[in-house]
Amino acid sequence: MAEFLYGHWAIMETLRAARRQSDQLLITETVEEKGIVADILNTANERGVKIQRVQRRIIDDLAQNANHQNMVLRTTEYPYVEVGKIMERAAEKGEKPFILLLDLLKDPQNVGVLMRVADAVGIHGVILQDRRGVAVTPAVVNAASGAVEHLQIARVTNLVQTMRDLKEQDVWMVGLDIGPNVPPIDKTDLNMAIGIVLGSEGEGMRRLVRDTCDLLLALPMRGAVASLNVATVGSVALYSAWQARGWQGWAHA
Amino acid sequence: MAEFLYGHWAIMETLRAARRQSDQLLITETVEEKGIVADILNTANERGVKIQRVQRRIIDDLAQNANHQNMVLRTTEYPYVEVGKIMERAAEKGEKPFILLLDLLKDPQNVGVLMRVADAVGIHGVILQDRRGVAVTPAVVNAASGAVEHLQIARVTNLVQTMRDLKEQDVWMVGLDIGPNVPPIDKTDLNMAIGIVLGSEGEGMRRLVRDTCDLLLALPMRGAVASLNVATVGSVALYSAWQARGWQGWAHA
Repeated sequence: MAEFLYGHWAIMETLRAARRQSDQLLITETVEEKGIVADILNTANERGVKIQRVQRRIIDDLAQNANHQNMVLRTTEYPYVEVGKIMERAAEKGEKPFILLLDLLKDPQNVGVLMRVADAVGIHGVILQDRRGVAVTPAVVNAASGAVEHLQIARVTNLVQTMRDLKEQDVWMVGLDIGPNVPPIDKTDLNMAIGIVLGSEGEGMRRLVRDTCDLLLALPMRGAVASLNVATVGSVALYSAWQARGWQGWAHA
Repeated sequence: MAEFLYGHWAIMETLRAARRQSDQLLITETVEEKGIVADILNTANERGVKIQRVQRRIIDDLAQNANHQNMVLRTTEYPYVEVGKIMERAAEKGEKPFILLLDLLKDPQNVGVLMRVADAVGIHGVILQDRRGVAVTPAVVNAASGAVEHLQIARVTNLVQTMRDLKEQDVWMVGLDIGPNVPPIDKTDLNMAIGIVLGSEGEGMRRLVRDTCDLLLALPMRGAVASLNVATVGSVALYSAWQARGWQGWAHA
């Protein structure tokens, strides 16, 4: 089924990554061909994507009235991978597996932020719980500034079973949790084969997901408002883990 | 001048902190008095705030059509402090100053996220560049889940001059920057009197602000999409700094 992506960076990275087949780029009649817009049109041309100017309301409709930045790209579905592919990616790079697992996150904005950070720290893959959690929708692609187009993302029907499978392959499951009895994140060596597990906004990890973790860690907090958004917690955790790995793979290290 | 705050946590924390004078809480005719709503109404009662049910469109208007969660609180302006107050706060706590400086950030959502993290890590105060940057508007209070009501926030007309003053008081100015020649954040000892300086979305710090920093640091990135949102960069930096301080002040440390 065709999908309609919107937003400058979502479209740019989808064209650059070229993992989906894009056949048509629709832009509003009035948008000027300069800056990032010109770059996108050039890239679309190079990729053989037909460019067409249409009335704004058509783009509003196709983007379901999201903030589309005057363009939509007609493309194929997001290319999910199998979990095995993620493990292969780590092996190819000669690195200990570094995986992000999202249990029933719902807000595309949060998932988008986490995908950008996952890309920045060089995660080998992201695993999403299918059905009740968020999928890689156009809203997520946009919120992620297109970073998802370069990531290996798997969707699984039973996250607990996937966690057990990974544990058998010696990947440690590290859940981010809250509470006084949970050790702070830096007191633990994250320089190992790990999957960082994040629970949903508000409710956290489901009980069975939590119980399947090898280790629970928390971000310390000492403020008056004792809560942080899951995207913030996950961003700090992913950077802590990469730091524990000595910024492995960083060009300037 | 009266302000109209909206959003459950924005209103709850404003009532709890009680630093502003709130005289009226307006709620929609249909909202049920249970859960967090009941908690807010109880707190409003304790504080002697008049509660009134009104038509939804009145609340829509007062909240300027933001996602108000069925209520607005009529209250006084945000109580900004002088920079000196922030230094006093650090002295009272017997801690090395730990300050966040925002140069011309514009997006209330980003500023809200940063304020929540500033509260969580126990920042002694936040300094905002006046005029062209964002102020503590109802949108920021809401995006910060009310964390701003517990923070010391100063607005200054000349951020560079404030940075120079702080440097004379031996506070190191650490700017978060990007680029290959900027050292990564963990290779530096952040366990000192510091002000973490963040620049605006897109453009980063203004040149003179950048030049006034004692030190520039970067978050390493190795992804295909080589950029991160300023709220993400700031969140990771604030946690790195607090970690470097050994989670000073954390109840469970």
